[in-house]
Amino acid sequence: MIKVSVYYPNSAGARFDMDYYVSKHIPMAQKKVGPALKAVAVEQGIAGGTPGTPAPYIAVGHLTFDSVEAFQAAFAPHAEAIMADVSNYTNVQPVIQIGEIKL
Amino acid sequence: MIKVSVYYPNSAGARFDMDYYVSKHIPMAQKKVGPALKAVAVEQGIAGGTPGTPAPYIAVGHLTFDSVEAFQAAFAPHAEAIMADVSNYTNVQPVIQIGEIKL
Repeated sequence: MIKVSVYYPNSAGARFDMDYYVSKHIPMAQKKVGPALKAVAVEQGIAGGTPGTPAPYIAVGHLTFDSVEAFQAAFAPHAEAIMADVSNYTNVQPVIQIGEIKL
Repeated sequence: MIKVSVYYPNSAGARFDMDYYVSKHIPMAQKKVGPALKAVAVEQGIAGGTPGTPAPYIAVGHLTFDSVEAFQAAFAPHAEAIMADVSNYTNVQPVIQIGEIKL
């Protein structure tokens, strides 16, 4: 199993509409990508590891697939439509990581 | 519910012993922190979002707690022992994020 994690870096001017992300963007992506998408998780950054420090990321989304190939096959046909929605909830350029689930 | 995520940045000289992390470090932390720790997830970075790019993080660990207060109360008494084990599996300084679980 693999996890595609989308990290939205925190900064002074960062905007992120969590309500839109959770109620519109993620459900739209789920519908387009279909059953290849096995699980979704979303977190809103609230703090860094040291008291008083800001969260490195304003928000993080995690999408679980069986494999990198399953992700690419399901996502590619809809990448343009999904990416076109990003400006509706953030002005931040996300950092993307693909990771193998070990635990 | 909150998630404490520990990101180990990827770099040319980064070392990370995933076997040790999963079979020794995480179980040790679970035992010390106790039932306040509700869930654990671990990923090994395999790629970035653009084909051919490296994973931003060599590894990521996620620890779920009921609240920031529950995390702090359970972790603080064991922080020193848990942190002292880090050099056994990596030479990387981790980035820590505390996030509120939204989905």
